[in-house]
Amino acid sequence: MVNQVTLNVQGMSCGHCVSSVENSVGKLDGVNEVKVHLESGKVDISFEEDKVSLEVIKETIDDQGYDIV
Amino acid sequence: MVNQVTLNVQGMSCGHCVSSVENSVGKLDGVNEVKVHLESGKVDISFEEDKVSLEVIKETIDDQGYDIV
Repeated sequence: MVNQVTLNVQGMSCGHCVSSVENSVGKLDGVNEVKVHLESGKVDISFEEDKVSLEVIKETIDDQGYDIV
Repeated sequence: MVNQVTLNVQGMSCGHCVSSVENSVGKLDGVNEVKVHLESGKVDISFEEDKVSLEVIKETIDDQGYDIV
């Protein structure tokens, strides 16, 4: 079962931030796609909820130093 | 002969940017010290002018995607 979620993330300010979020979330098993929109602070994620939980995805973003609001 | 210069650099917005500038400049042969001040956009650099030119240092920062003003 594929889920699509959009998270509001604070603190992403540049291309390095985009890479750190996209790469860290993107390599989670069960994440199909992750796209950061820098200007809006939104992160679109497509994931398989039987493989990875939204909680783990949020923790991964938090671990990179960003706040989910 | 050791020189000390402070450059005004635009576009550094986060800790990743600090690292990219400090690491790229810091590994140039002849650069003794480099310190980024994120809030002010200033970069203090101590370098040996017989080993590395200011021009090369500026190009290195530019190559990381930042503008020297």
